[in-house]
Amino acid sequence: MDAESRILRDLNEPLVDHAEGQLFLNDAFKIIMEEVLCKGTDIKQKVCEWKEPEELSLLLDLELRATGEPRERLLQRVKDVAKYSIKTSHPRFFNQLFAGVDYHALAGRFLTEALNTNLYTYEVAPVFVLMENEVLRGMRQLVGWTEGDGIFCPGGSVSNMYAMNLARYQLLPDVKRQGLFGLPRLNVFTSSEVRNGHHTVSVGLPTCRMFNDDRRMDPVDLDEKIKLAKSQGAVPFLVSCTCGTTVRGAFDPLDLIADVCEKHKLWMHVDAAWGGSVLFSKQHAHLMQGVNRANSVAWNPHKMLATGLQCSALLLQDTMNLLRNCHSANATYLFQQDKFYDVKFDVGDKSVQCSRKVDCLKFWLMWKAVGSNGFADRVDKAFSHAGYLVDQIKKREGFCLLQEPDFVNICFWFIPPSLRGKEGNADYQDRLAKVAPVIKERMMKQGTMMVGYQPLGNKVNFFRLVVFSPVLSQKDMDFVIDEIERLGNDL
Amino acid sequence: MDAESRILRDLNEPLVDHAEGQLFLNDAFKIIMEEVLCKGTDIKQKVCEWKEPEELSLLLDLELRATGEPRERLLQRVKDVAKYSIKTSHPRFFNQLFAGVDYHALAGRFLTEALNTNLYTYEVAPVFVLMENEVLRGMRQLVGWTEGDGIFCPGGSVSNMYAMNLARYQLLPDVKRQGLFGLPRLNVFTSSEVRNGHHTVSVGLPTCRMFNDDRRMDPVDLDEKIKLAKSQGAVPFLVSCTCGTTVRGAFDPLDLIADVCEKHKLWMHVDAAWGGSVLFSKQHAHLMQGVNRANSVAWNPHKMLATGLQCSALLLQDTMNLLRNCHSANATYLFQQDKFYDVKFDVGDKSVQCSRKVDCLKFWLMWKAVGSNGFADRVDKAFSHAGYLVDQIKKREGFCLLQEPDFVNICFWFIPPSLRGKEGNADYQDRLAKVAPVIKERMMKQGTMMVGYQPLGNKVNFFRLVVFSPVLSQKDMDFVIDEIERLGNDL
Ligand SMILES: Cc1ncc(COP(=O)(O)O)c(C=O)c1O
Ligand SMILES: Cc1ncc(COP(=O)(O)O)c(C=O)c1O
Repeated sequence: MDAESRILRDLNEPLVDHAEGQLFLNDAFKIIMEEVLCKGTDIKQKVCEWKEPEELSLLLDLELRATGEPRERLLQRVKDVAKYSIKTSHPRFFNQLFAGVDYHALAGRFLTEALNTNLYTYEVAPVFVLMENEVLRGMRQLVGWTEGDGIFCPGGSVSNMYAMNLARYQLLPDVKRQGLFGLPRLNVFTSSEVRNGHHTVSVGLPTCRMFNDDRRMDPVDLDEKIKLAKSQGAVPFLVSCTCGTTVRGAFDPLDLIADVCEKHKLWMHVDAAWGGSVLFSKQHAHLMQGVNRANSVAWNPHKMLATGLQCSALLLQDTMNLLRNCHSANATYLFQQDKFYDVKFDVGDKSVQCSRKVDCLKFWLMWKAVGSNGFADRVDKAFSHAGYLVDQIKKREGFCLLQEPDFVNICFWFIPPSLRGKEGNADYQDRLAKVAPVIKERMMKQGTMMVGYQPLGNKVNFFRLVVFSPVLSQKDMDFVIDEIERLGNDL
Repeated sequence: MDAESRILRDLNEPLVDHAEGQLFLNDAFKIIMEEVLCKGTDIKQKVCEWKEPEELSLLLDLELRATGEPRERLLQRVKDVAKYSIKTSHPRFFNQLFAGVDYHALAGRFLTEALNTNLYTYEVAPVFVLMENEVLRGMRQLVGWTEGDGIFCPGGSVSNMYAMNLARYQLLPDVKRQGLFGLPRLNVFTSSEVRNGHHTVSVGLPTCRMFNDDRRMDPVDLDEKIKLAKSQGAVPFLVSCTCGTTVRGAFDPLDLIADVCEKHKLWMHVDAAWGGSVLFSKQHAHLMQGVNRANSVAWNPHKMLATGLQCSALLLQDTMNLLRNCHSANATYLFQQDKFYDVKFDVGDKSVQCSRKVDCLKFWLMWKAVGSNGFADRVDKAFSHAGYLVDQIKKREGFCLLQEPDFVNICFWFIPPSLRGKEGNADYQDRLAKVAPVIKERMMKQGTMMVGYQPLGNKVNFFRLVVFSPVLSQKDMDFVIDEIERLGNDL
């Protein structure tokens, strides 16, 4: 084809055929329904279909080529991707801090994808600017704030990072113009469990200081460490408490920490990425007593509430536009001041992102569907499961609880018969450390369930079972215990 | 209900009914198909349904309550959200650097949402670890690298931020342990268009230095500014070039800049978030001549290639694990070293995020569907549209091009009859500045199309039309010109 006819073709033939495309989408939807949502949640089916990387690569034929493929082939690809992916909505998936499916949330996510909205201005995202606002308001209300600010971020790590940006900017507003050069030595304080259990707080950070406490932050120690840091010329600026640590689910004593923060005039951040959802529950909200005294709270509905990835909110008590002042860059192609509507609705300038996905719709639709009461039921249900599981573990020979849980993370060892009563042996810990990895390998290769394990400090590999998916029932928990025993009895 | 029976209920009644949920999802899917994908792409329908924030709030009844709502009500909500949202796949949506729909990508997005995979380890994301790897390989190949590294990030701003982290870490690896205190005064260099046109490069940054060039970075000036900075005791460490600036679509001269970077041993980053897709085109890839000499490239398929939000890759030439070394925190609950498979496949540690959404599947499926050749056609088509539009603008009275474009961003003024020939008047610029906002208001209130405008430096408000959606044809572009004239002729 010569250049001119090519241009003519370009100008007159759209490259996407809507009718054909919609047919494809329809067929893909049916496959998703069948493979991911029906089979993928059926306990008679495997939770995973283990393949070694090399073999899986071959099976999937991932290579990208110059020419496209026919429709049937592409639909088969949709099927294969589903087949070899982990079924995270399966009732025997206990591997992470998310699990289960909520169909209202999922409908919200499909709608989000189809609309493909970019949440920067009211002009392009009228519905979602208002909706995000309302969802943040609802969440702040549970924290105990009638006013405030906030934003959805792509995950809890980013929410935590924003809190640090804000704390630093409030203390040293010149940072924004002058950069980080010549700043004093800033210090952040957080508990040792965070160091062990989660890595996000270390991002972009000055020195961290840790506490030698069992699993919760010790306010007396905190006070001393702050004084020490000051006496050494450092400038403490932020205390990051945790509500629901990643591994053990511990809750820091917020009220006592708030006293220390007030005394030293430090920004108090609460990382409630995992635990924040207890705020819905009348029975369990007390775990976060004092959260209303924080400056900022990070809370991920994509964890306990099963909204699906990604859904993480940073909530702020601030009413002085700190977030916008800290992050705004006033890009003239987005945030013109001569618009025909009130530009306070152009919220994109609060973010360091430019494009920002809509993360609020799935949560909003689900909240509309089940109400705050429905969320409370889910949280309470999770605690009931945890209580039941702890009882079973205590009763069953060969199972040993790490400690009584605060939350729904149940940490325990399985001691195979060959090791029982051998606690005194020199190689006991070494041998125990090897048990969980082998059981894990076996469960995955057989596809019966997925449970995480990890070491922590001087504690060798133990299982962490997180029981909160709304699709769980008692028999799923009985199954886990029996299955671990079955898989590990010969070790 | 007493506590005991509540617990019994909790243990035995799942809170999600799969059959009911799947029915809901099915119905929601039909609404999405009808409202978003059929009506939303139909030129006989409006591209937006303008409402003032207060009115829209009332219409949507956003408030979150204690009790849930019935199914029919929820389906109506899905419809309402669709109705009042902007139709970003409509052929008359020219407002941003994304537009149009690709059904293969959309099928990939629905599958991503249903699977709800978290991309941290091979254990939970076997398919997507391998797939991301292959997609990054395919993109690197277009850059001209047979080896290297990379990662998908939640947007181009984060990709750019990562490049800075890496450049700084390479220069000063102690940053990771010791924090930012006591660092020398680091300098980043970027072009003035970036300052005006886009705000992401300023995040978390030391001082920026700008260049006085028309719209592209001037290598001679760059060299001088670097020398000056050094002579003043600063430590230059990164040059960030742009391929496809946000407003004018300018491409910096990469080969000449690479010479300067080599001379001064600086990290060369290429922000090709918007322009990177020209690499698919034999005809236009020359715009990025020299990109293979960069250390890092940020490239967003969610912009020109219509994968949908979010899809942004950071590509690296490095083969020494810089990304992992810089970002890893070795969280023991994810990245155990005693796993039963090769833990090099646990890629999550390369990210500062913890949860990370799967952003590669939609792009991979689409690439499989159209092939690299299909992407080349799309890019070429966009250039054909741009060429056509420039011709029309030049021919039409009252339209004035800002300058000849490098790319598919067409920037121009509409001069209403009352202002024509009045260039000499003292209030000419002030009056011209008011034209675009009024036309914008009118087009949105009538819902006929959406086009962005902005000022830039000493240039008053002009339109920026970006023509690249694969669903466009010539009549859509003719329409835009006619419509601007119709809406602005009385001004
Ligand atoms: C306590 C805690 N904070 C923060 C995060 C990070 O959240 P995200 O995974 O959304 O980045 C996690 C994730 O597990 C967490 O457990
Ligand atoms: C040149 C350039 N770089 C970076 C970005 C940021 O990308 P994102 O919107 O994905 O954050 C943009 C967005 O428009 C851009 O135009």
